[in-house]
Amino acid sequence: MDIIQSVRWSDDGSGVRIIDQRLLPERLVECELRGLDDVVNAIGNLAVRGAPAIGIAGAMGLVTLLAPNAADDRDTVIARAREVAAIIRTTRPTAVNLPWALDRLLDRAARTDGDGAAIIAAMRAEASAILEEDRAMCRRIGENGATLLHDGARVLTHCNAGALATGGIGTALAPIYVAAERGQNVEVFVDESRPLLQGSRLTAWELQRAGIPVTVLTDGMAASLMREQRIDLCIVGADRIAANGDVANKIGTYNLAIAARYHDVPLVVAAPSSTFDPATATGREIVIEQRAADEVIRWGTRQTAPPGVCVYNPAFDVTPAELVSAIVTDHGVCRPPYRFT
Amino acid sequence: MDIIQSVRWSDDGSGVRIIDQRLLPERLVECELRGLDDVVNAIGNLAVRGAPAIGIAGAMGLVTLLAPNAADDRDTVIARAREVAAIIRTTRPTAVNLPWALDRLLDRAARTDGDGAAIIAAMRAEASAILEEDRAMCRRIGENGATLLHDGARVLTHCNAGALATGGIGTALAPIYVAAERGQNVEVFVDESRPLLQGSRLTAWELQRAGIPVTVLTDGMAASLMREQRIDLCIVGADRIAANGDVANKIGTYNLAIAARYHDVPLVVAAPSSTFDPATATGREIVIEQRAADEVIRWGTRQTAPPGVCVYNPAFDVTPAELVSAIVTDHGVCRPPYRFT
Repeated sequence: MDIIQSVRWSDDGSGVRIIDQRLLPERLVECELRGLDDVVNAIGNLAVRGAPAIGIAGAMGLVTLLAPNAADDRDTVIARAREVAAIIRTTRPTAVNLPWALDRLLDRAARTDGDGAAIIAAMRAEASAILEEDRAMCRRIGENGATLLHDGARVLTHCNAGALATGGIGTALAPIYVAAERGQNVEVFVDESRPLLQGSRLTAWELQRAGIPVTVLTDGMAASLMREQRIDLCIVGADRIAANGDVANKIGTYNLAIAARYHDVPLVVAAPSSTFDPATATGREIVIEQRAADEVIRWGTRQTAPPGVCVYNPAFDVTPAELVSAIVTDHGVCRPPYRFT
Repeated sequence: MDIIQSVRWSDDGSGVRIIDQRLLPERLVECELRGLDDVVNAIGNLAVRGAPAIGIAGAMGLVTLLAPNAADDRDTVIARAREVAAIIRTTRPTAVNLPWALDRLLDRAARTDGDGAAIIAAMRAEASAILEEDRAMCRRIGENGATLLHDGARVLTHCNAGALATGGIGTALAPIYVAAERGQNVEVFVDESRPLLQGSRLTAWELQRAGIPVTVLTDGMAASLMREQRIDLCIVGADRIAANGDVANKIGTYNLAIAARYHDVPLVVAAPSSTFDPATATGREIVIEQRAADEVIRWGTRQTAPPGVCVYNPAFDVTPAELVSAIVTDHGVCRPPYRFT
């Protein structure tokens, strides 16, 4: 099965290669990130997106940028690494995976003996480990989640929590890929996911590429499809999961969860265990980012609403735990009542 | 209050003037329909849309096209009227208002004595009557519906069931206009209404023009807004209402109705009594038009999903009566249980 890899070392190991997701689905372009500007722009301008993929690209980018320092002494390399990491860190202030991955590399550097070249080699190994751990984590989510999919399952998903967003086979899409690899029939329906259309642009693209049947719908059509009894299960990802099981995820997830409950269709959340935030008691404590009006009312050069109109554009919503049938992680399948500590 | 008029006689009475709704919200262009091609293209290419507005434009267009026949005898005018009406009738085969309006003019012609000029004058009077009846009907819906809006009401609507879709002040928007005219504060939130964006392009435009505060959101955001307790009432239009109160309306209405029920927000349907179809027992009997994939996966010249992907694109959905809190018509306000005969 041909599942896209969104971030990888370049063939000669000297750079990072990413899929430029801004150009999908019209063109598949892989970019090589070599300079600091390349790395900062790729992350800042959303060429690479998805919290795990951003963390991996940032870590691998940091290593790449240290190549000219290979002959320097230990302290110079560590100082330079801190300097570069500080710049990369600022590109997407809200994603937790990016600072986490950069800090892992800096910690590894501090704990490593030897000259500058040894430090860089250790950081490269750490970046590769982050990538490999993410791949393994996705695979385990997929294996755990695949137990919920019967042969012929018709699955509805939202946004893109797929291979493009991670180092591996995704989170919400991982159970679908694993079931398909095992020879099960799986059919996927995907909300286009306005305003940024990650569902139609990205999820439909990567599933089609992998040979999995996929149908695109607008976000307002999901309930109609469920009423026609054409959906067995909904699977979505998560950006943060509160201690009580409330789930913050891409805007539109909550709407979908309500429609699923009304039709007795299970809603499953698939996410790495690192998404749990026991310090947040309930979803009401999660602050939701409000994004720019133009995402909703402009399309390229076209205006889709009158200038000056007010726009409501939260990036995420919170689905209360009572609407979540199961949470699949790399550790297993959790059922309500949820209590994450 | 400056409420747009979507269809009207031209100032010298020799033609029909319509707002070209395809160009909104970027440009307000009024077109004069004089030839048969003008009328057929305006209706067929959706320059004029909304079932009542289409019926009115078709009827007024028919009268305009008979002007060259004013010196002809009675039988020639009637034969020509039938011929032209048959062509106009085919432009939008599904809208019931168009054949209904054309037939009213042909019946009036057949019942009128006198020469060709007298026949044309009678048909012009009938077309004007259709327009005036629609204006009065919208006004009555508005007055009946306004009783449901308290001062400061925050109303969510979907698609465009406004002045642009009718000869008057709309159906779903009529109660809002009437309340605002009476000096009540009303704030409107509107789903953009994918795939054709009638909410952001048209509803936001006409409300903003009338000075009513309006906020645009994507279809997947409505539930989030309700959870924040920012919506008091939802008002939508209807394309057809079955005998049991099931409502066919623009796709996305059913999704919205489920979210409204989950949050205990009333969902009100506002529609002319001509929308009732007692011959249809329940919504399950209503055949839903499936539309072209390109509406969902193309945007101008841009592809928003991979070529060849399957698309689910029903034009309408059916909201079961159990989710409809009230139905407002030109005759009054109906409450459940509904039984229309």
